[in-house]
Formats: sequence, structure tokens, C-alpha cells
Amino acid sequence: MNSSTFHEQPTQTPERLAFYAELDRHDLGALWEVLGKLGSLEPRPASVPAHWNYDDLRPLLMKSGSLISAEEAERRVLVLENPGLRGRSQITGSLYAGLQLILPGEIATSHRHVASALRFIVEGRGAYTAVDGERASMRPGDFIITPSWTFHDHGNIGEEPVVWMDGLDIPIVNLFDTGFAQKYAGSTQPVTRAEGDALARYGTNMLPVEYTRYGSTSPVFSYPYERSREALARLARSGPLHPSHGVKLQYVNPATGGAAMPTIGTWLQLLPAGFDTAAYRSTDGTVFSVVEGSGYSVIGGKKFVWKPKDIFVVPSWVNVEHHADDDAVLFSFSDRSSQQALGLWREEAISS
Amino acid sequence: MNSSTFHEQPTQTPERLAFYAELDRHDLGALWEVLGKLGSLEPRPASVPAHWNYDDLRPLLMKSGSLISAEEAERRVLVLENPGLRGRSQITGSLYAGLQLILPGEIATSHRHVASALRFIVEGRGAYTAVDGERASMRPGDFIITPSWTFHDHGNIGEEPVVWMDGLDIPIVNLFDTGFAQKYAGSTQPVTRAEGDALARYGTNMLPVEYTRYGSTSPVFSYPYERSREALARLARSGPLHPSHGVKLQYVNPATGGAAMPTIGTWLQLLPAGFDTAAYRSTDGTVFSVVEGSGYSVIGGKKFVWKPKDIFVVPSWVNVEHHADDDAVLFSFSDRSSQQALGLWREEAISS
Amino acid sequence: MNSSTFHEQPTQTPERLAFYAELDRHDLGALWEVLGKLGSLEPRPASVPAHWNYDDLRPLLMKSGSLISAEEAERRVLVLENPGLRGRSQITGSLYAGLQLILPGEIATSHRHVASALRFIVEGRGAYTAVDGERASMRPGDFIITPSWTFHDHGNIGEEPVVWMDGLDIPIVNLFDTGFAQKYAGSTQPVTRAEGDALARYGTNMLPVEYTRYGSTSPVFSYPYERSREALARLARSGPLHPSHGVKLQYVNPATGGAAMPTIGTWLQLLPAGFDTAAYRSTDGTVFSVVEGSGYSVIGGKKFVWKPKDIFVVPSWVNVEHHADDDAVLFSFSDRSSQQALGLWREEAISS
Amino acid sequence: MNSSTFHEQPTQTPERLAFYAELDRHDLGALWEVLGKLGSLEPRPASVPAHWNYDDLRPLLMKSGSLISAEEAERRVLVLENPGLRGRSQITGSLYAGLQLILPGEIATSHRHVASALRFIVEGRGAYTAVDGERASMRPGDFIITPSWTFHDHGNIGEEPVVWMDGLDIPIVNLFDTGFAQKYAGSTQPVTRAEGDALARYGTNMLPVEYTRYGSTSPVFSYPYERSREALARLARSGPLHPSHGVKLQYVNPATGGAAMPTIGTWLQLLPAGFDTAAYRSTDGTVFSVVEGSGYSVIGGKKFVWKPKDIFVVPSWVNVEHHADDDAVLFSFSDRSSQQALGLWREEAISS
Repeated sequence: MNSSTFHEQPTQTPERLAFYAELDRHDLGALWEVLGKLGSLEPRPASVPAHWNYDDLRPLLMKSGSLISAEEAERRVLVLENPGLRGRSQITGSLYAGLQLILPGEIATSHRHVASALRFIVEGRGAYTAVDGERASMRPGDFIITPSWTFHDHGNIGEEPVVWMDGLDIPIVNLFDTGFAQKYAGSTQPVTRAEGDALARYGTNMLPVEYTRYGSTSPVFSYPYERSREALARLARSGPLHPSHGVKLQYVNPATGGAAMPTIGTWLQLLPAGFDTAAYRSTDGTVFSVVEGSGYSVIGGKKFVWKPKDIFVVPSWVNVEHHADDDAVLFSFSDRSSQQALGLWREEAISS
Repeated sequence: MNSSTFHEQPTQTPERLAFYAELDRHDLGALWEVLGKLGSLEPRPASVPAHWNYDDLRPLLMKSGSLISAEEAERRVLVLENPGLRGRSQITGSLYAGLQLILPGEIATSHRHVASALRFIVEGRGAYTAVDGERASMRPGDFIITPSWTFHDHGNIGEEPVVWMDGLDIPIVNLFDTGFAQKYAGSTQPVTRAEGDALARYGTNMLPVEYTRYGSTSPVFSYPYERSREALARLARSGPLHPSHGVKLQYVNPATGGAAMPTIGTWLQLLPAGFDTAAYRSTDGTVFSVVEGSGYSVIGGKKFVWKPKDIFVVPSWVNVEHHADDDAVLFSFSDRSSQQALGLWREEAISS
Repeated sequence: MNSSTFHEQPTQTPERLAFYAELDRHDLGALWEVLGKLGSLEPRPASVPAHWNYDDLRPLLMKSGSLISAEEAERRVLVLENPGLRGRSQITGSLYAGLQLILPGEIATSHRHVASALRFIVEGRGAYTAVDGERASMRPGDFIITPSWTFHDHGNIGEEPVVWMDGLDIPIVNLFDTGFAQKYAGSTQPVTRAEGDALARYGTNMLPVEYTRYGSTSPVFSYPYERSREALARLARSGPLHPSHGVKLQYVNPATGGAAMPTIGTWLQLLPAGFDTAAYRSTDGTVFSVVEGSGYSVIGGKKFVWKPKDIFVVPSWVNVEHHADDDAVLFSFSDRSSQQALGLWREEAISS
Repeated sequence: MNSSTFHEQPTQTPERLAFYAELDRHDLGALWEVLGKLGSLEPRPASVPAHWNYDDLRPLLMKSGSLISAEEAERRVLVLENPGLRGRSQITGSLYAGLQLILPGEIATSHRHVASALRFIVEGRGAYTAVDGERASMRPGDFIITPSWTFHDHGNIGEEPVVWMDGLDIPIVNLFDTGFAQKYAGSTQPVTRAEGDALARYGTNMLPVEYTRYGSTSPVFSYPYERSREALARLARSGPLHPSHGVKLQYVNPATGGAAMPTIGTWLQLLPAGFDTAAYRSTDGTVFSVVEGSGYSVIGGKKFVWKPKDIFVVPSWVNVEHHADDDAVLFSFSDRSSQQALGLWREEAISS
């Protein structure tokens, strides 16, 4: 075995080839012919480092707004396809991401699906997401969850286009053949609770005495940027900074202390101006969305320069180093929750 | 068996009495002689319903301030002794409570113990508690935790006396013979983190990526009244009210979703003006401290009128009904966390 | 502060004494007067090291058999009272223990209580315990559980007296004022399942697909000595021996991997002939019952010689060393499960 | 929307097609063009019901034994490929399965990988699997685990060919890009513990006092058929039978009560002679291996007749009914553990 492969394919002889053909007729295959493809010494993600410049994305988004209505599209989304995974509607090996546009006056009708969804607001004000009878206003930087199998609809009652990034676990749900979906009888669900109810009920380190946990998704479905941003600022002042992550906070489910969603981990981090992170890699391929600041990241040896609203991807087990020119805030998400639940996750910090 | 006892004591004969004396010499006893005392059809708490009027307590507290220094007393506390448990320094069968006074300029020196402590601030501003290198300012209504085996000291750097209620699990720690205590080498521990650090780090439904859970006490050790009070107000507006509790929130550990302390449960509740709760009982004898409003509670058939800063006790399995004259806020604590951890807790709501 | 106390009591002056009297009239006490009693640098258990010789116990047990019927006694048990805790029906600060005798033809009628009970069979064959409609035969060395609030009755359908040790968490249940008890309508519960059903269903590292966990007590309520003894023997052969414990196995709940009972931990251990354990102490005062072999234990510096069926106690935080003359098997139980659930447990192995 | 699709694809216009081409150049896609493919009203597994007759499999296995050595093949396995997933080395959407042959005197050298593996012994005696320094003998019906990232090697020291079914979570590990693999320095790992050590240590509802849980795979890595089969027999006698499953036991991890492996669930079930199960479906596509008895299963309306050593597959959300001609024992495995950990699993029993 050389250093880069786990298994060397045996010699193919006429006799063996004939045998393989016979196996084929019985829905069988010879493991030794494919073992090198099935396993490897280290992860070999098909996804590659990638970066989308919002200057390119925005005109296309706006153009989509005139080409198709929210109603006809069901959801007007430009899917971010990893260049290594074209045609599969995936941004990493296990996750879907897209940018959704909703124009003033539009509604994205109510439906539900087993796939869990996150929304990270990129630009615009005046839109909302309704979940479980409560509407959450969308402001740039807010992180909003649509839990698995929960009816949800979106609307824009403001005066400007609103754009957010969607992140879903569709490839995971599909690998396990567990996808269900359903449309709501009407176009929108009735509003039964005042905005902010869930945050008041579950978001202040207190839980109602009658609360009983259901599922493992956070009952706080909207995490306002204002609060998260202030926490980052305080921690940056207190220090110390994490060498690989600066100040990095994970959004958690206040009823469990675990990740906000059972399949997807989500984070918000601050890299102070001038900060260079130490090289780091983990098995969870990660999608970043820039909220504030500019800088660059070196991903697998390749440099990607970013600024607000840009999106970039670090694949599994590929080294990443970040540099912030000015105070930068990055939102990120990955399948780490899934990997940890299944005992698969690894990380490695490379000390300089 | 009649309806009120589990076991009828057998007849005592001379022969049996002689046998019991023989048993006694061998460190033995006859179960049938004591079974009626050991078990019962329902809880028979020795603690009784009780109420302390702060108008009575305050002059005594202030007098203690002139009679003994914080230094000489180690902690200048008037212990609240349940009338049914006099001489045992207990407010219920399993909990200790007291009112602590700290005068301007005083310090209560640093020590630690296995017993977990809660502080609920009753009056005054300008004092602090230091835990793990961080000071938390004490304002009326704030709920502050001293986790088990954590060095802590208190100080008053303001200009008025500060009073808080202490709640500790001393009887529990002592039942299990698990008490350890230690004085800090100096009088106060060094301050190594800015005030508010723990709340920023753990209190916004996010956790630092490098956080690892240690023990089961909340890493948020100060829960400011302002936040908790606002949550109550929002929920009172959204409704519905719980028939037995009005709006009642439990302080939780954001890293687990469980109680803020492993042995003691703590709550803050709002009873809107005019609200009458349905009768309720549970096996956790509970201590209430009135923060706002006035009203009365009927405990085991006896009426107790209360106003701000008063303290009252509802023993295990005794019915309680509350009435609020104006919007009332009650803080409460009990051993429910312990009981739930051990599979012992029961409750019963009596529907009218 | 000297090395042995946590708090020095302040000087008592006439003025202070008058103040204490005034406090007393208001159901208050001065903490500084009792602080030294409430807390200590280390556990100060009231229980003491103790040993009961079965040669003494057996004649008394048999005598009790002629003095009172099982029916009149409800349970014919000689309570083992720790010499440091006389009159309180306790063997340690938190646990009750006794020796129960049931004669051929007798029945101990069905009842239930919140207190959890363990039975460890000391001598005789032919008796059974019925739990949840299933009877478990009692053979010397078997460990049997009566879960909290489960109807149970015992009977002797054999031809010889049967004796077992009972261990209950009565002092814990009573500290928390959570005791309930109830008699069954008839004298014995109907048998609805064949003996061995629970063990087959839950005891082979498999669980029925329809099983749902209820409470935290083990669904396996009988752990036959034969199986446990064989496991000890195999591990003694494989090694290595634990320096403080020889080979020591904890009985676990196969549905959780935790202790078999939520409040009480139970163990069976083998000390090979000639083995001397290293000194060890932990905060859980522990009751030992000798199953096989003879030897001695040095507990808190005092030597106790034991042989089969003897019982001895190691109080909290007292050092113990065991010596086995021949292969010895010890059953033991303590409140460790409770302490661990509440975050109170500590242990210390003294390396020689 | 008609009843079978979640989303109707919008009309394609020249303008839209031009836009899609532009999107394509920016690594983007239009969600509304693929939404119907990404989501569905119900699971639409690509895998199909399938059955392999061991009469066909055995000659091919034996032929492979003469065509390639265990050494050259690394592992001599015929991969069972689901007819709906040809070329992907998968038996369901998330699992790999194969039949491995090891001839007398052969060794399958030691390596480790992140993928978890199960072995279910189909025929032959004299082989072993070594895991963590302990060898487990393989007998027909035994269930053996190779935990994630554990060195393991196999050998046949007997006198007949040995065949077992392998089940691995390779597609899951690969979806998450978390695969690592490593060869052991030598061909086999040293044996450091006697056979049966793990079972004695962890398999009798007891755990060593020094045991600390590591990962979530069962420390019992071999579950002998004899024990499991006897448990089934007892439960079949006690009843009642589960209408959809007969008597079905899940292999569990004694240290957690959860599944024996974190990603894969495994079961052994008994269908008494003449028993017909009620129709049932669940989202975990399941692989069955027949141990004893003969009968047939109707899977998605199609009948498959089976006998000992046959293998068949029930895909996700496809109805299955079993009929046993004589007492039948079926081993099965699926990704249910993964699905439950991620909150994705559903089941439905169809009452007749």
C-alpha cells in the first residue's frame, strides 16, 4: 500500500472478469474491485473550496424577481451549487444552500417537510417567517429556524426586497429516504401568538413550568442579531481569543444545551481587525456567510477574499485560515450536529 | 388498617418487650414496632406553613448589624427556622434559608463548600458576589448562584445596607454526609473577568465553541431581575395563564436545559391583579419571597397575607392557593431538582 | 480557624444573648451561633464503623419467628441500627437495613411505597418475591429489587426458613417528605407472568422492540447469583485486579447503563485469597454483606473480622482496607446513586 | 398539486432558459426547476425489494475462494447490490452489505476504519474476529460488532469455510465525508485478553466499577446466538406476540440501553410457525438474514419465499408482511439508530 490509498486493486484476469460478469447477473459485486473507491485513508470530499461574490449574486437574484413570481416558484431561490457537485443542488456533501428573494407584497405559501431549514438574513427589512402560529421579523444578521415537519410561510410586508440564505439538510434526509412534505390547506397559517413570544418564553435562561420538551430543535426559532452581536463584542473585550476561531459562539437549544437543530450546527463568530487564525480543519464541511467586515480566507492553500454578504465554503478536512482586515463577523453552518450524534466528527487544530 | 395509618403497632407483651431489650443490646430493633413511624400513606412533613413579615425582620436585621461584624460572624445571617423544625436551622425538611445583611464597606470573606447556595436580593444596591473571578452586582430581584465547591465572597461597596435571602441545600448535603468546606487563603479572591462576562458567554442562547460542561450547575451565575421580569410581562400579555401558577418560569442551566442548580429548583412567577390560583400541591416544600405586589395565600387551609419582601413557606403535599390584589411577582425555591433526579417528585392540581 | 473546624463561634455577650432570645420569638436564629455545627471541613458522619456477627443474629431472627407472625408484623424484620444512630432505624446516615425472616408457609402481604427496596438473600431456599405479576425465586446470593411504588409481596413455599437483607432509602424519602404507601386490596397480587420473564426480556443485552423506558429502576428485578458469580470468576482470571476493590461489578439497569436503582448503588465484588486492598474512602457510607469467604476489614483504623453472612458498615469518608483469607465475595450497597445524581459524590484512593 | 408530487415545475420560457444558463456559469441553479426532485410527499427510495437465494450465493462464494486469496482481496466479499442501486455497492440507500468468505488457514489482516461494521455468521465454524486484543469465535447466528476506528482482523483456524454477512454504514460515513482508514503495522493484532472477557465484563447486567463509557458502541462486541435464541424462545412462550413483529429483540449497548451501534440498529426476531404479521412500514430500509425456518414475506405487494441463509431487503416506507411456515428466526439490521439520533425516523403499523 502506498501512502495515499487504502487498497490496491488486484490484477484483472480473464477468469476474474468472467466471474465479475456472473456476479453482476446476481446483483452482486466483488468488494476487492471497489474497495479503493469505498474507503480512503482520509476524507476525499467531492466538494471543493468555493466563494460567491454578492456583487455577482445580487443582480441575478433581482433578475429572478422579474422572471418568476414567488407563487409560481413556490420558493424563489437560487441554489448555491458547489463546483465539485454540480447538478446535485448541494453546497457540501450533506447540505443544501440557496439565496431566497421575496419582494414587497409577496407571500411564500405555507408548507412543511421533514428537512430542517435555517434562514440567515442577508439584506432588506420588512419580511417575516411564520412558524407555529408566530411571526418572526427578519432583519439582517438574524438567524431563524424552521424545525422539521413544522408549517411555515414567509411574507414581505415591507417596501424593499428581502434576501436570506437558506440552509437545509436535504441530502441527509434523502440519503436516509425519510422525506415527507405537505402543503398547508390555505396559503398562510393563522397568527396565534404575538411576535417575540417564543423568545420571551424560552430565550432568557428560563423555561415555563409547564414546558415539555418535544423533539430536539430549539423552541427559540429566532435569534436576533442584536443580542448575538453584543455577546460577541463583550467576549472580544474579555478575551482570550481562540487561536483558530477568534470569538465563536454556537447557537444552542435552551431546553437541552445542544445545537439549535438536530442535524445542522450554526455559529456566529467575530474576528477582530488584524487577527489571523491558526490553521484548522474538521470533518464538517462548512458554509460561511459574511455579515460584517472584510478579509480573506486561505482554504486548502487557495486564497479567497471576502466582504459583507459573500458566501464561501470550506470542505471536510481541508485546512482553513482566516484573516480579518477590519472587525469581521461570520455566520456559519455545517452538519456537525449530525456527525456528533453519529460519532463521526473529528477536528484538528494546527499549531503554528 | 384505618385510613390514616399504614401500619398498626402489634400488642406489646412482656415476652416481646424482653426480646426488644435483647435486640437493643445487639444494635438491632424490631421493625414492626417502628413501621408506623417510618412510613405513611402520604407525606407527613414536620415543617408547617409559615410566614415572616419583613416589617418584623428588618429591625432585627439592622440590629444584628450593630451587634456583630461581618468579619466576626463569617456570614451575618438570620436563619429562618420553620416553626415545626425549631433548633435545626431549616426552613423545610431539606433546605436552609436565611436573610443576610452586609453593610457598606463590609466584606464577607472568601470560602467554599459543597453545599450549593442561591442568593435572592431583597433590598439595597451596591453589593456584589464574586464567583470564579467574576463579580456580579446585586440589585433587588436578581437571582445569583454560588455553585457547589466554588470560592465566593461578598462585599458592599455602596452606601446602603444590602439584604438578600440565602437558600442552601445544607440538610441534603448533611444527610448524605458529603460536606466539605474550605477557607480561601486571602479574604477575597482576585477579580479576573469583567462583570457580565458569564452572562454574555452563556446567557444569550449561545455557547462558546470551546465550552465544555462541568458539573450540572448553570454557568450563568447571575440572572438579572430586569430580564426575567420583562419575560413574565410578555407572557402575561400572550397568555394563557396557568390555572395553578399564573405565569411561572423556572431558571434553567443554558448548557443542559435543566434546573439552574442540581439540588434546588428556582422560579419567578407573576400573578396578575385579581388572579386566584387553583389549589395545588406537590411534594417539594417551597419557600416564597415576595418581590412585587400584595395578596394572600391559603396554605393548608390557613390564610397568610403578604406584601413585598415577605417570606412564606408551603410544606410538602399541603394545598396552596394564591390571590393577588395587584400584579404580584413571587420568587420561589424548593428541592424539586433533587426529588426529580431521584424519581421522588409528585404534584397534584386540584381542579375547582 | 484551626485545622479541624470551619467556623469559630463568636463570644457570647449579655446583649447578644438577649438578641438571640428575641430572634427565637420570631422563628429566627443567628447563623454564626450554629455555623460550626452546620458545616465542616470534611464529612463528620454520625454513623460509625460497625459489624454484626451472623452467629449472634441468627438465633434472634429465629426467636422472632416464634414471637410474632409475619401477618401481625406486616414484615418480620430485625432492623440493623448503626451504633452511632440508635433509635433512628438507620444503618448509615441515609439508608435503612434489616434482616427479614419468612417461615415456610408464610406470606408477607402485598403493599407498595415510594421507598425503593433491595433484597439480598442470606440463607434458605423456597421463598419468592412477587413484583409486577412475576415471582422471583430467592436463592442465597441473589439480588432482587422492589422498584419505587410497585406492589410486592413475599412468600415461603419451601420447607426451611429464608432470611434476606433488606436495604431501603427510607431516610432519603423522609428527608424530602415524599413518602406514600398503600396496601394491596388482597393479600397477594395475581401472578401474570412466568418466572424468569423479566430476565429473558431485558437481561441478555437485548430489549424488546416495543419496550419503552419507565422510570429509572432496572426492568430486570432479579439478578441471580449464579450469573454474577461466574462473571466475577472470569474477571478474576483475566485481571487486572483493582487495587482498592479487587474485582468489583456494579449491578446496572440494562435500559440505561446506570445504577439498577435511582437512589441506591449495589455491587458484588471478589477478593482473591490473600489479596489486600489499598486504603480507600468515599462519601457514600456503605453496607457490606459477606457471601463467601472470610477475612477482615480495617475501617477507620479498627479491625473487623468477618465470615459468610456477616454484615459490616463503612461510614462516609472513613478509610477502609480489606483482606481476604480465602476467595471472598462481598455484596455491598450505598447511596452513591443519589450522591452522583446530585453532584455530591467524592472518592479517594490512597496509594501505598 | 396532484396527489403524487410536492411541486409542479414551472413553464420553461426562452428567457428563463437563458437565465438558467447564466446561473449555471455562476455555480447557481434555480430551485423551482429541481424542487420536485429534491422533495416528495413521501419517501421515494431508489432501492427496491430484493431477495438473494443462498443456493445461488454459495457456489459463487466458493468460486471466489479459488479465484482470489484473502490476502490479495484484503477482504474476500461479494457485495450485495440492491437492484435499484447497481454500481454503488449499497444494499439500501444508506447501508452496505456483503457476504464474506474465509477459508481454513486464511487470515484477513488487521486494519481499522471509521465505518462501523457488523458481522452476522451464516455458516461454518472455526473462524474468529479479533477486536481490541480479544478474539471472538464465530458460530452461526452470532452477532459480532467491529466498532468505529477499532483495529480488527479475522482468521479461520478451523477446517471448513466460514461465511458471514457484513453490514457497514459506508454510505453514511461517505455522505458526511468522514472516512478515515488505516492498516495495522502487522498482519494481526496481539491477543491480550481471553475469549469471553468482554461478555463477562459487560454482558451480565453488571459493569466494572472502573468502567468509563467511551463512544456509544457496545463494549459487548459479540452476542452469542445461543443466549439470544433462548431469550426469544422464552418470550414466545410468555407472549404476547407483537402483531407486526412476533417476538423481536433489539441488540443493545449495556452501558447505555441504546442500540449496540450508533449508526446501525440490529434485531433478532422469532415468528412462530403459522404466524402472519400485520402489515408494517418504517422509514428505515431493512436487511433481513434468515437464521432458522422458512416462510415468505410480501414486500410492497410482491411475494418473496425464503429459507435459512437467504437475505432479503425491505426498502424505506414500503409495506411488509411476514409469514412463517415453521418457527422462523430472522436477523435484521437498518439505519434506524442514525434516523432516531437525527429525529428522522417514522413507522406505521397497518391494523387489519
